[in-house]
This record gives sequence, structure tokens and C-alpha cells, in this order.
Amino acid sequence: MTTSVTPLSALSADDLAARLTTVRAAYDELKARGLKLDLTRGKPGADQLDLSNALLDLPSSYRDRSGADVRNYGGLDGLVEMREIFADLLAVDVASVVCGGNSSLTMMHQVLTALLLKGGPDSPRPWSQEPVVKFVCPVPGYDRHFTMLAELGIEMVSVPMHSDGPDVAAVRALVADPSVKGMWIVPTYANPTGAVCSAEVAAELMAMPTAAPDFRILWDNAYAVHHLTDEETKSADALGLAAASGHPNRPIMFASTSKITWAGAGVAALAASPENRAWYLERLGFAAIGPDKVNHLRHVELFGDADGVRAHMRKHRDLIAPKFAAVEDALSSRLTGLGIAEWTVPTGGYFVNLDVLDGTASRVVQLAKEAGIALTPAGSAFPHGNDPRDRNIRLAPTFPVLAEVEAAMAGVAVCVELAALEQLTA
Amino acid sequence: MTTSVTPLSALSADDLAARLTTVRAAYDELKARGLKLDLTRGKPGADQLDLSNALLDLPSSYRDRSGADVRNYGGLDGLVEMREIFADLLAVDVASVVCGGNSSLTMMHQVLTALLLKGGPDSPRPWSQEPVVKFVCPVPGYDRHFTMLAELGIEMVSVPMHSDGPDVAAVRALVADPSVKGMWIVPTYANPTGAVCSAEVAAELMAMPTAAPDFRILWDNAYAVHHLTDEETKSADALGLAAASGHPNRPIMFASTSKITWAGAGVAALAASPENRAWYLERLGFAAIGPDKVNHLRHVELFGDADGVRAHMRKHRDLIAPKFAAVEDALSSRLTGLGIAEWTVPTGGYFVNLDVLDGTASRVVQLAKEAGIALTPAGSAFPHGNDPRDRNIRLAPTFPVLAEVEAAMAGVAVCVELAALEQLTA
Repeated sequence: MTTSVTPLSALSADDLAARLTTVRAAYDELKARGLKLDLTRGKPGADQLDLSNALLDLPSSYRDRSGADVRNYGGLDGLVEMREIFADLLAVDVASVVCGGNSSLTMMHQVLTALLLKGGPDSPRPWSQEPVVKFVCPVPGYDRHFTMLAELGIEMVSVPMHSDGPDVAAVRALVADPSVKGMWIVPTYANPTGAVCSAEVAAELMAMPTAAPDFRILWDNAYAVHHLTDEETKSADALGLAAASGHPNRPIMFASTSKITWAGAGVAALAASPENRAWYLERLGFAAIGPDKVNHLRHVELFGDADGVRAHMRKHRDLIAPKFAAVEDALSSRLTGLGIAEWTVPTGGYFVNLDVLDGTASRVVQLAKEAGIALTPAGSAFPHGNDPRDRNIRLAPTFPVLAEVEAAMAGVAVCVELAALEQLTA
Repeated sequence: MTTSVTPLSALSADDLAARLTTVRAAYDELKARGLKLDLTRGKPGADQLDLSNALLDLPSSYRDRSGADVRNYGGLDGLVEMREIFADLLAVDVASVVCGGNSSLTMMHQVLTALLLKGGPDSPRPWSQEPVVKFVCPVPGYDRHFTMLAELGIEMVSVPMHSDGPDVAAVRALVADPSVKGMWIVPTYANPTGAVCSAEVAAELMAMPTAAPDFRILWDNAYAVHHLTDEETKSADALGLAAASGHPNRPIMFASTSKITWAGAGVAALAASPENRAWYLERLGFAAIGPDKVNHLRHVELFGDADGVRAHMRKHRDLIAPKFAAVEDALSSRLTGLGIAEWTVPTGGYFVNLDVLDGTASRVVQLAKEAGIALTPAGSAFPHGNDPRDRNIRLAPTFPVLAEVEAAMAGVAVCVELAALEQLTA
């Protein structure tokens, strides 16, 4: 139902008051339904996890292609068959890939702690010996990237995230400061905006001069193959562009099967220049006995090859695209033209980015909570949880079943309008 | 065959020269056999790994006891059923246990890097901000404990490891220095001596005054249930003793199923005081999405409970006790009475500690290598690989099959005597 195309800001005070009464009544009705819905977490739904249930009976053998016994210790860089699959999916050389445990977040943390305690191959000294270390953070971005930096005492400086990637001019200005040692980016189907970093933006980021000789771009390609449409976007070639511009050690790429097979029991991967990779493996060798190669083999047997993964991802798409469509339907049918919200229509990834009227995001989340709809805390896509305009909300529609997404989003739309009306009539 | 009970040092120069000729001939014969044997790594043998092959078809379900879906994210401290098994095996409260990934070494590294970058709950400041940080290292000890400290820039001070644990008087003297922040110990069936830390020694270590308020004992109970005889030693109650003496945060305990199920695909665990555990989980929360709970469930289904693990360990014992007996037979039949070697007869764990004539350990390892028998590098059980007496060799008999252990040890005995004779006739 399209309710109105008059922006709320164009309504008279009387009309606003009348509309507030109507929407408040709708909200009271919503509350009375006693919902218990959750749009907070970018978790796969149970039906998505079911796609990989063959893992329960795998692997069928405990020998890898070379005949090695995967049950025992060793093989620090992971099963070569598993590395080949990631190399194909990420369009990098297999020699650049390391496969690890069940979490790419852990690999990112390992890299950061090693940079702090030891420094990289091109660092003048360990980062922890610098007076201050800063990271460029495109916003809105991934909350766990930011909380990890805060935990490790790394300061955050923000740049806007556009639909083709981070604002390059803003990044260029910041990296003239030698204390700016790195930046985060989710290059493909970014969390939460769904933006895809273009080849042009990637090339500029890899080529730009930086004051720090050991500047790192942590290239978290978590959603490289997580397409929502037939248009299967290719990620920019970070490692190739960096090498071509003379900064081979700048990017370190991360990925995982967390949202391909089982979220908690998948395989993570890192890809980097020869020097970075050797540096990482040397550090890792002091801290690990080798990854769970049985789980690598389990995944290799499940997929066969990278095309097996791609086919598998289309099954995910078939399950979750309707949920994203439900988000779009709820928002566009109820909020289009009101001038109080903008949202993304992502072609991949796990999130919809909803920007509401400035100053009302926290109120929307609170209203939703009181109506039994859990949303990610307002501001969580910003460093220290601080959204300066208090307008950003991250929606994660994959985990609930479709009917729940529909019910939750109808409610969210009411909360967005109610919060806007409260503000406009205050 | 008992060859001689005359100590070599009591032989005349002529007798020594004659014996050197004989033993050199035996060594030449050994070399001519073109052996390719390996006693370097404390790895389970393939027959031991076979004991857990039921894991290939587990888990049978993806729900834990509470009905939660173990395939998805979450559960940072691990599956409670798995924690219960470790709690029983380690004789600690289940509330103290965290179950992690496939490597307790990784958990130790996480603890050390967190202490360096953040400090513990009772640290005046992060350890990396101290001018110097030192660790007490009982020697001989576990090489990976020492290389981890070296990597992280932590200085090592040694104390002797006795048959009932570290030399307490030596430890007490060292911990009066506030820069001494911690110590390693493998309390049960220590690597490499097989020593078992007595309850009395453990009580003293937990109760002793330390200058550092945040002194930590990393209690690596890797072999807690790895008995080689019917006498199944109980580990000292580190957490209980520490709490009783007012230092609850002093010990952090580690263990894993690496040498219970599959070395590379097991489950690691940590146990600590409430404050330490909360501190560890808070750090971990910034770096992980939760452990592989599917692998936890896989192990829970394999064993049922802690008694299932104990029964399983007796099958390991049946497979490896003959290998330890072969080591003992080879050494005692060939070297007893010669006054050139002492060795342990461990009642658990994975190693035999061989002390040869001072100054000859490196030569023994070299001779063995030239005869096709790989031994752990001499000195590796000491910080920085430096055995001041060059006498210590760690033997690891579990990985080769029995006939290989027999052949390798017969050869090692020849090398030990040859190196001794070379030195005595030099």
C-alpha cells in the first residue's frame, strides 16, 4: 500500500499531529501483538545451514590428495586443495593463500597483534612502540572491525563509504599522517551498505602514497561470492593492483566459508604477498600446531572445486533473496516519499543499510525493542558506536524465517515513522 | 645383551682405543643399512589416530543437549557438554573451563599476547610497557614454550626440573624480582622428563610470595590423562591450591585432546579463576566468533563422558607402552653400567629424556642423522636451544611403528657410545 507521497516535512502542524495520532495507534497495535523478532545478527538461517548437512558425514577419508594423513599435526598453511578453492574464488594465486581455523576475524586479530608486538616486514619498529597508531575506517562499517581496534588501543579516523568504495580523497588526506598505519575495507557487498569497491577506487587505494612505509589495507572480502542477483560482481584485484603499483605488502585479504557452509564450523583464509605471507606464517608457527585439516578436507569433499562453491551460493541466494525483497517491500511501501528514510537495495552480502531522519535512529531502535523487535544498536556501524547524525540502522534479514522478516519490517517501518513524527512535532 | 659393566672412564687408553674401533665398526654397519627413521616429534602414531576414526561419521546431529544449533555462530566458551568432560578430567569446576579450537598452544599464545598488550586483571600496566618481562623456565622443558617466549620478547630464566617438579627454592629466589611475571610448567608427565609435579611442590608454587602482583603460572597439563602404566597419577589441584593460598589468578591451566583423538583436529581447553576466565573471554570476544562447536559435539558423541576418555586412553597406552619399553630395553641392554648415559623410564606422557656424556649430545644427534635416524636437535629442551652441558636429548617414540623404534634405538645407543668414546679418546 502506498500511503502518501507528501514528505512529512511539508505537512502542516495539524496534519502532523493527526498523523502522529494515527501512527501511534498503529504502534500500540504493534506492541499489543507481543512480537519476539530479531534482525540484529548477520547469521545464516537454519535452512541455509541445512544446505551443508552433508558435512555431518564427511570427510570420507583422512588422506589428502598427496596421501598425507590429515588427522595428525602439521601443515601450517592448510590443505592445498582447500587453498586452491579459495584462490579460485578470490582470484588470487594459490601460493598467496593460507587456510586457517573457523574464523577470519581471528586471522585479522592475529595480524594486528603481530603488527603491534613485532611489526610487519617493512615496519621501522613494532606498532606498539609508536606513540600512536591510527586506522582509517570507512563508515558505516563493520562493528567488529572497530571494536577490535578499540580493544587494541588503535585510534580510528573515519571516511565516508560511497557506493563504489571509500572516499579516496578523504583517505589520501589521512594517510599523509605517518601514524595512520592502515585501513579496513569490506570491498564487496560491504557491511552494512552493500557497496562494492570499484576497480578504480581499489587501484587508487593500492597506489596512493602513504607516509607510513608499512601501511596495511585489511581487505575483508567476507562476501566475495555472496551474490543476491544474477549479476555476480567480481571483486577488485587487490593483490595484483598493489603489486603493480609497487606496494605488494599493502593489502592483506581475508575470507571464510562462515556464510557458505556452517557459520561456526567453517574454514577461514588469508591471502597476501609472498613477504607478508611468510611473515604471517612465521608468527603463526610460534602459536599453532597447524589448522584443522580434517575440516579442510571435509569442505573440499563437500564442494569438489570453486564451481561447487558457486553453485552452492546460488542455493543460498534462492533462500535469502526473498527476505531482502521483503525488507525492500516493507520499506518502500510504507516509507517512500515521506522524506524520512533512505535505504540500500543490495545485490549481495548480508545487510540492508537504513538511514532514518537525523537524530532518530536510537529512538527507532528503542521503539522497536519495546515492540519486541530486536535491531542492532544504533551507531554500531561507527567507531565507538558513535553515529554523529544518529541516523544509521543496520538490518540483518537472513536469520529469521520469511514471515518473521515481513512482520519485523512492517513494524520497523512504523517505528521509523513514529520516531520521525515525534521529532517533527516536538 | 649386557656387554659390560665397566664404566668407560675406568678403561685404559688401550682398551678405550680398541673399543672405539669396535663401536666405530658397529656404527659403519649401522650407516650402511641406509635407515630412514624419525624420533623427533611427539606425534601419535597412525594406529593411535585410528582409535578415533568414528569421528569421521560424527556428530550424528547438529543440536547440543540444550537444543541449540551448533552449526551457527556463538557460544564463545564452548559447548557445555565438552566443558564438563574437561572439568572431570582436569578435576576442576566446569564453570572454570573454556573450550576452544584445535590447539592449546594457541590459547597459551592468546593469553601471553593479551597480557603483553592489555595486562591481566591484576596488572599495573600491560606487560609490553614494562622495561623487561621474564619467565621462569624449568629445564629441560618444552621447546615450543621457550620459542613462544623468545618470539614475544620475554626473557627466560631457568630452574632445574626435578622428578617432583621445578626446584622450588630456585623459583622462590627468582620471583623476588618484580620483572619475573610468570613461569611455565608441564605438571604431569612433563615434556621431556616425564616428571610429575607433586601436590607439595604445586602448593609451594601457588602459595609463594612473588614480587609481581600479576605473576602467572601457565600450567600446561597436556598429558594429564596420558598414563603409560596402571598407576594413573592424579595431577596436583593447581586452581584449588592457588585459591586456598589467596592467589586465585596465579595459575592458568591448559589441556587438549590433541593426543587423545586426532592431533590436528582436536579440542583445546583452558581453566582458570572466575576473574581470569572473564578476562580471557572478554579478550577472546574481540577476536573470535566462537569455537567450532560442531567439533565439540563430535568429541562429546565419541566419548559420552570423561570415563569414555579414560577408557580410550587405555587403548592408547596399549599401543604405545611397548614402544617405551623398546626404548628402555635398547638403552639398558646397551648402555647400563658404561657411565655415559642416564635416561628416564616415564610412567606417562610422550617422551624419554636421555642425558648423555657432557659435551656429546650434539655429536650423538649428528651421528644419528648421518645414520638416517632423526633426533630432536640437541639443546631444544632449553631456552634458545642452549643446553649448557650439551648432554640432553629428547626421544619421542610414539610416531614410528614398534620395529622402527627398536631399530632406531639400537642405533641411538651405538651413537651414544661412539660419541662418548670419541671424547674420551680425544
